[in-house]
Amino acid sequence: METLEAMQEEVNAAGANVRALKAEGASPEAIAAAIDALKKTKLTLESELATLKEAGNAEAKAKEEFRSKLSGVLEGRLFYIPSFKIYGGVAGLYDYGPPGCAVKANVQAFWRQHFVLEESMLEVECPAVTPEPVLRASGHVEKFTDLMVNDVQTKECYRADHLLEEKIEELLRDPMLKADRRRELEDLQARIDELKVEEMSVALKDTNTKAPVTNNDLSEPYPFNLMFPTQIGPSGAVKGFLRPETAQGIFVNFRDLLYFNGGKLPFAAAQIGQSFRNEIAPRAGLLRVREFTQAEIEHFVHPDHKEHPRFAEVANIQLNLFSQEAQLAAVKKPFLMTVGDAVSKGIIANETLGYFIARCHLFLMAIGIDSARLRFRQHLKHEMAHYAADCWDAEIQCSYGWIECVGLADRSAFDLNAHSEKSKVDLVAYERFDTPIQEEVLVMTPNKQILGKAFKKDAKPITEALQALGEAEAFALQEACAANSSAALKTDAGEFQVSADMFKVEKVTKTLNGRNYTPSVIEPSFGIGRIMYCMFEHAFYIRPDDEQKTVLKLTPVVAPIKTTIFPLVNDDKLNDIANQMNKTLTSNGISAKLDTTAVSIGKRYARTDELGVPFAVTVDHRSTTDGTVTVRERDSCDQVRVPMTEVAELLGRLCKMTATWAEATASYEKQATADD
Amino acid sequence: METLEAMQEEVNAAGANVRALKAEGASPEAIAAAIDALKKTKLTLESELATLKEAGNAEAKAKEEFRSKLSGVLEGRLFYIPSFKIYGGVAGLYDYGPPGCAVKANVQAFWRQHFVLEESMLEVECPAVTPEPVLRASGHVEKFTDLMVNDVQTKECYRADHLLEEKIEELLRDPMLKADRRRELEDLQARIDELKVEEMSVALKDTNTKAPVTNNDLSEPYPFNLMFPTQIGPSGAVKGFLRPETAQGIFVNFRDLLYFNGGKLPFAAAQIGQSFRNEIAPRAGLLRVREFTQAEIEHFVHPDHKEHPRFAEVANIQLNLFSQEAQLAAVKKPFLMTVGDAVSKGIIANETLGYFIARCHLFLMAIGIDSARLRFRQHLKHEMAHYAADCWDAEIQCSYGWIECVGLADRSAFDLNAHSEKSKVDLVAYERFDTPIQEEVLVMTPNKQILGKAFKKDAKPITEALQALGEAEAFALQEACAANSSAALKTDAGEFQVSADMFKVEKVTKTLNGRNYTPSVIEPSFGIGRIMYCMFEHAFYIRPDDEQKTVLKLTPVVAPIKTTIFPLVNDDKLNDIANQMNKTLTSNGISAKLDTTAVSIGKRYARTDELGVPFAVTVDHRSTTDGTVTVRERDSCDQVRVPMTEVAELLGRLCKMTATWAEATASYEKQATADD
Repeated sequence: METLEAMQEEVNAAGANVRALKAEGASPEAIAAAIDALKKTKLTLESELATLKEAGNAEAKAKEEFRSKLSGVLEGRLFYIPSFKIYGGVAGLYDYGPPGCAVKANVQAFWRQHFVLEESMLEVECPAVTPEPVLRASGHVEKFTDLMVNDVQTKECYRADHLLEEKIEELLRDPMLKADRRRELEDLQARIDELKVEEMSVALKDTNTKAPVTNNDLSEPYPFNLMFPTQIGPSGAVKGFLRPETAQGIFVNFRDLLYFNGGKLPFAAAQIGQSFRNEIAPRAGLLRVREFTQAEIEHFVHPDHKEHPRFAEVANIQLNLFSQEAQLAAVKKPFLMTVGDAVSKGIIANETLGYFIARCHLFLMAIGIDSARLRFRQHLKHEMAHYAADCWDAEIQCSYGWIECVGLADRSAFDLNAHSEKSKVDLVAYERFDTPIQEEVLVMTPNKQILGKAFKKDAKPITEALQALGEAEAFALQEACAANSSAALKTDAGEFQVSADMFKVEKVTKTLNGRNYTPSVIEPSFGIGRIMYCMFEHAFYIRPDDEQKTVLKLTPVVAPIKTTIFPLVNDDKLNDIANQMNKTLTSNGISAKLDTTAVSIGKRYARTDELGVPFAVTVDHRSTTDGTVTVRERDSCDQVRVPMTEVAELLGRLCKMTATWAEATASYEKQATADD
Repeated sequence: METLEAMQEEVNAAGANVRALKAEGASPEAIAAAIDALKKTKLTLESELATLKEAGNAEAKAKEEFRSKLSGVLEGRLFYIPSFKIYGGVAGLYDYGPPGCAVKANVQAFWRQHFVLEESMLEVECPAVTPEPVLRASGHVEKFTDLMVNDVQTKECYRADHLLEEKIEELLRDPMLKADRRRELEDLQARIDELKVEEMSVALKDTNTKAPVTNNDLSEPYPFNLMFPTQIGPSGAVKGFLRPETAQGIFVNFRDLLYFNGGKLPFAAAQIGQSFRNEIAPRAGLLRVREFTQAEIEHFVHPDHKEHPRFAEVANIQLNLFSQEAQLAAVKKPFLMTVGDAVSKGIIANETLGYFIARCHLFLMAIGIDSARLRFRQHLKHEMAHYAADCWDAEIQCSYGWIECVGLADRSAFDLNAHSEKSKVDLVAYERFDTPIQEEVLVMTPNKQILGKAFKKDAKPITEALQALGEAEAFALQEACAANSSAALKTDAGEFQVSADMFKVEKVTKTLNGRNYTPSVIEPSFGIGRIMYCMFEHAFYIRPDDEQKTVLKLTPVVAPIKTTIFPLVNDDKLNDIANQMNKTLTSNGISAKLDTTAVSIGKRYARTDELGVPFAVTVDHRSTTDGTVTVRERDSCDQVRVPMTEVAELLGRLCKMTATWAEATASYEKQATADD
């Protein structure tokens, strides 16, 4: 873009030159030469724009082809199915079919193992139906919105940011765009997600954005709440929503969970469950859906002690960090750094947040995300909520760009404070001081008897006003009463004259053994569906020898089943052995699938590759004589001969990923591949 | 109740006697004696009613106490938490806290193992948000209702059946109730669940039922739909509901699932997920909730071949059956019978339904349901939907009575037909005949050209009328045309005269190699939450030696964790060993929890008993010298000394339930119990 801008300045300069020469009445030759120069610079710019457009188109086309092939496999093999397909489907709703369901169960089970069990987190399960006050306290009723516009004629609804984005892209394709206008539009494009309603209104008008297809005028943008509304019970009195995130169920249970944990901090609670967002116009396929599975952790910690006891275990892990500074630099590039360094340099705010970023990195690696297409992007200052101490997104690159798949935020005490305030229930932890503290405190004691007699029903607001006085005000009032026998006191019920006998003010020294405080919360929040989609993109490839041979190189931990078992030909003896093998593996906890269809072994391998099954056991005639079978690895297509009695142990090690294929099979006889 | 009725008849007879004697002017002595006799029978009846009431009260009180103790444990230890408690809660919504969540995950994992994996079912996961047409096709929009009434003054909503039930109970407590009226009310009471709106209206008036508390009049009863309504997308154009059951997601995917299964029947699909019912006034605690987890299976099978290949494996399982006949007998009692006999005698409609009833029985036994409190109740004819071939509920007895926890129904082709019709997509399977069939078929060929010329726009209804004719009518028309040159044909557009050249009728022999048919579906549907609650009731007991010692005797397969590990005293050496033990067990897949709190071992045992943890490993001073620990079994409180190296294997066997405690520990040294 830098060169593009320079070229455009050249065009403008050349144009200005022509005008200047004309104005000053230069020679026709000089003017002709200047016009020639202008034409040349214009041509160069146009051809550069055309090249860029072509490259863009080619890239877009390649991505489109990739996605169409991938979705051919994913939908064809029922990893996903558009929901309610026979009724025409509903945008943003997808089913998981059998292999998708199995992969999802594996991803969730591994998440539970990696986070909940290894860290002894407290898991909870709360309903999706949520009464309004909870989501009002959390801010969702007021703020969980997207800006919407309508076609003024057809009333069709659109997301304002989508239309603006498309319009800007169209404008940027104009070769004659002024350089400063280009800069302006590019700047606007970068900020689209953050525009407030008034800014959006201005931007839409400024760019002359119209409704798609009809080209009609658009309404003013207005916020549309993304929560699905519903009603609880028959009277219509209890308004509710489907939860937009699972986190709130944890916050409202904080008091019970703290008690369950013996009153001790830090501790973490976790929840895996469905969340719902009533997207205006879901696009981007499986990445923006209306119902999805979240896995959220709320780690409660003392605001002054955000060290983490297990930080040393992760300190040397290298992360691909895209910090605020890196994003604001002239050349915007993420960098590799250990989490230990990132915390000690203050790039990541504290150990606990760093610990979870590193654990998240390990989780994503284990399920097969490509480390080269993973980065942790820090929120810029203006992106971050005012209360957040620090915030990073795990972004995974796929054909749709860099996708936010995990959010990791230090939300300070915001959520607990918000629910404390609205529910009138203290959500605090108690800390005992190492040594008790002596503290002078102001004690204001209204004399209720005298106040009651003197003011009747106004005694209450007067009492409250007295108790609300700060130290300086309280003593000032006392002095004023002493000086003038009475003094004025402002209350909610108006001003009253009070006298010295009506209250007592004093400073008292108290011994405090501890105090209540509101813990901070560090929240890692995982979008399971998005992670899975990116994982499928990273796992998908086509074998170089055959366009038709598509493979999902899912890691054993997430693969829908771990191995297929094939009798080489349909023969009773071989089938019996295959059946026996199936039972042995299944009872050893290795999920297996028997395939006795009478098609060629090559076709059966292709089928199992497309499902992402990492291993295949083939029973052949030698099996009946020497008790061996062949075991094949999906990606290398390598095969070894293994005694049947050792298959369960071998696959067990491979599936737990405690050994690589090469290590685990070193001692076995290699077998020629039989993929065709 | 039989004696009560007889006693009431005696009272009535004695009263009639007094009146008769008075009317016929009998002697004062005779009348006095008759009055005495009347008084005596009245007193006997009143005392009998009082005794019954007292017994009822005592039973109710005992149940209340039991439930309060159990819920003290379940809520106190966070198995359950009323949702949104700090905001006052919402009736019918509950959270699972950490141990509840763990138990639920275990129940679901075991369900998946027992049904999905062992039977190679196709698991799917579909969204809860469902567009209206799907639920209109399934009948839920029209029929998924409860009858509601309002207090005409306050507009408060009530379930009509609840109010009627309470009113009938009140009326039945009247000692002077006429015997036939008592019979009438008891009959009505038995049918409350089935009353149609008009019958409910009559019943409410007949019993003079009023609004609770206010005693105001009630509105006419009207149906209230129990689905939570919502809107999909921003325009309000797409109406939706939260699914009331998970089954529909499977039916709408039938075509894809059949394809995935290679076009072969039978096969089963399964789904575990949340369902939602907007109950009018949820009572009965955890048994009637507004959001709950269902686990449903839809087994698709040829309507004429409902044999099951694995039926022999379950044929000898004894079931506690409460058949239609048993329910209608004078003495209503379930009976024990093997599932094999029940199917061969035609009590259970077919092998596949019988197979699933038996598998359901095994599932419930494995998770700890008391077999004496489990029965399979067949739906009575009038309870069953018109399309259902047979239907049984697994009912579990708890303090709330016999609770329907699993429904097992042969729903014939109803669901697939309903969705085929509304979606216009054929949901059928193809069967190839063993030998092709020769079939004579009627072929009616209207001559479109002649019809078009003769009738213009009426040609279409005439063509349709011709094609709709049955065999006899078609040939009759042909004959009539031959005899009179033309004949009358009734169509949607009126009557027309047609002639012989306008159509051709003939019988043709065709070879059919197979046909499409709509499969039957057999549906086992599990309410996970209800099963869990009954399981907790059956598991709960108080140790005879101490009122305070409450225990949940959860089976190892569902227990939230399998073992606790205690260092006997807080000592670095013991703690190290305990830590090591913890790591070993966890890495062997046995979930363990270390408890190093400095309270007495008896208190720690009590804590672990209340959580339903089946085993406890204690590290004591001997552990440091001879490398043994003690292992305690929760219910017997038996303890044995076990070498540390053998603990994982011992607990593994016990948790997989491949050996009893006595068998597994026979070779180990017994240890005196240290529970106090």
